[in-house]
Amino acid sequence: MSDPTAAPDRLADFARAVLRHAGADDDTAAAATDAMMHAALHGVDSHGVRLLPHYAAAIRGGRVNGRAAMRLERTRPGTGMLHGDHAHGARAAFAAMDHACDMAAEAGIGAVGIADTSHFGAAGAFALRAAGRGMLGLATCNSDAIVRLHDGAERFHGTNPLAVAMPSGGAHPWLLDMATSAIPWNRVGLYRSQGVAVPEGVASDEAGEATTDAEAARMLAPLGGAYGFKGAGLAGLAEILSAVMTGMKLSPDVPAMDGPDLVKPRGLGAFVLALDPAAFAGAEAVERGMRRYLELLRASPAREGGRVMAPGDREWEVVERRRQDGVPLDPQTAARFGELAEAAGVAAPV
Amino acid sequence: MSDPTAAPDRLADFARAVLRHAGADDDTAAAATDAMMHAALHGVDSHGVRLLPHYAAAIRGGRVNGRAAMRLERTRPGTGMLHGDHAHGARAAFAAMDHACDMAAEAGIGAVGIADTSHFGAAGAFALRAAGRGMLGLATCNSDAIVRLHDGAERFHGTNPLAVAMPSGGAHPWLLDMATSAIPWNRVGLYRSQGVAVPEGVASDEAGEATTDAEAARMLAPLGGAYGFKGAGLAGLAEILSAVMTGMKLSPDVPAMDGPDLVKPRGLGAFVLALDPAAFAGAEAVERGMRRYLELLRASPAREGGRVMAPGDREWEVVERRRQDGVPLDPQTAARFGELAEAAGVAAPV
Repeated sequence: MSDPTAAPDRLADFARAVLRHAGADDDTAAAATDAMMHAALHGVDSHGVRLLPHYAAAIRGGRVNGRAAMRLERTRPGTGMLHGDHAHGARAAFAAMDHACDMAAEAGIGAVGIADTSHFGAAGAFALRAAGRGMLGLATCNSDAIVRLHDGAERFHGTNPLAVAMPSGGAHPWLLDMATSAIPWNRVGLYRSQGVAVPEGVASDEAGEATTDAEAARMLAPLGGAYGFKGAGLAGLAEILSAVMTGMKLSPDVPAMDGPDLVKPRGLGAFVLALDPAAFAGAEAVERGMRRYLELLRASPAREGGRVMAPGDREWEVVERRRQDGVPLDPQTAARFGELAEAAGVAAPV
Repeated sequence: MSDPTAAPDRLADFARAVLRHAGADDDTAAAATDAMMHAALHGVDSHGVRLLPHYAAAIRGGRVNGRAAMRLERTRPGTGMLHGDHAHGARAAFAAMDHACDMAAEAGIGAVGIADTSHFGAAGAFALRAAGRGMLGLATCNSDAIVRLHDGAERFHGTNPLAVAMPSGGAHPWLLDMATSAIPWNRVGLYRSQGVAVPEGVASDEAGEATTDAEAARMLAPLGGAYGFKGAGLAGLAEILSAVMTGMKLSPDVPAMDGPDLVKPRGLGAFVLALDPAAFAGAEAVERGMRRYLELLRASPAREGGRVMAPGDREWEVVERRRQDGVPLDPQTAARFGELAEAAGVAAPV
């Protein structure tokens, strides 16, 4: 690999310094960095440190409030609304999940709707926060429209992720972090730059017809191919929890992430939930069940040339590798980091 | 159509009478009938009245307790465990959802794990119960192993459904009721009887290799085709909520539904959750958002020859039609109904 790599600790220090220089307070800089580093270490590079220049610009522009005064409205014993004051999405989502876990410790379950927030990065980061406290965590959001409906011919839903994490009784939580689209949009960009075809049934042209031509692709298909009504339904679930329940913008109304307007807050919603195993069959019985489930799963035979893995297993392997070898930076991002370092008066991480 | 049809009311009366004759108490007969009639009316014939002879035999055999003494253990303000005493799955799931809604009315959210239960039919029936009370409802269960893992070569998960219903502000709730497998197993049986090929990528032979030969199919693929790790992950979510959280049997350990043993209880788990919109952005704002979401969705352009629908729209059309024209019965089920009618001393519904 010819891409430069950066040591995780240095990369995180750099990200925090750049965000603070853009106007973020310490909590915001830490939360946004934690979310980016989660993605960078798990191999989700689309939500990794590549986003740092964008986040810095959005804070500087005012779209994202780097010094947000968030407020939790505890509506009931198990629920709340976090009024985000246009905080960085990661700042709001980590805080919301902390509140959800606090409520779950009392009420058995806690759910927090997030209002007036912004892009939060990889949803898995927030689900894992609950798993770190011994709970099942779920995090979801909607986003700007890029995915057609089943049989649709228009960008309608965002890639609307669903992430769930569950303590495994082992070293790493079970971790499902999936877009409800067939593939992420940045994959189309990758196929374009490589000049290769898009796989069958995952992208459509402007008439909604399936295409394998990366240049002709204008929207993504929902997960499920011929059964895309399931993926579109799951995208709808993310939409209902994140935007309808919170009174925030629906995907078709969400301004594009890339701008050009980086001044006006985007008015995004999001949703997190935590569930305490101790309030069901009991922490011990649940851990025993989870261990057995993962043992059976990992011992299940694979088809020839395949490999059976639990959700997250592939990503945890990447984490091990990148903690050791560093996080690869694409050339464009590395170049942008040079500019950011100079402007902030700090050393670049590579 | 040459199949005989039965009027819904007569069919429901007949089902209740047959179940009572098999030993069910009134509540059990009513709940099992409601669940079957939900499926029969929504066009989910695999979970419709075709199941009546099986349910009657399972109650008579003792596997299902027709006079269960269920007990709710309210573990926390927002959570509980329903100890099912091996009740019919529908009896337990309706009761659990009623408890979940009661808790959600106080705590904003309510979740109930169900222990010691049995096959509950179509999960959507229970999700709808919450929507009928103005809440978002979620219902899920695991079931006997029939779906391989991503890259797997063994039946591992059940078809593990996820059902979510949400009040729409209109005549019918938004209703997603999906198996996490690519297709239901009974679809393979249909392809076999019709002598036609199975669609690409939805079934595998005994080595886990994809097959379109209905006779060679031994297991289903998880939802998602090449991205089947998402479908397998969603099946895992159903498994964790239904079986791990409740301390009940994992799919690979669940005895086959068809028997031969109809004496020993199956030890299934299930899980329901209700969420009160009033505890988030408020009932009015949420209803407004849901109306707008569905308006935008139904107005979204379709590709040529396609039709864009919200989850449940297709099924609600079937309900309208079948309420008017009756529920079609396949010849085998109609014949079995003749035998059941004679044994119970009641009139057959066709």
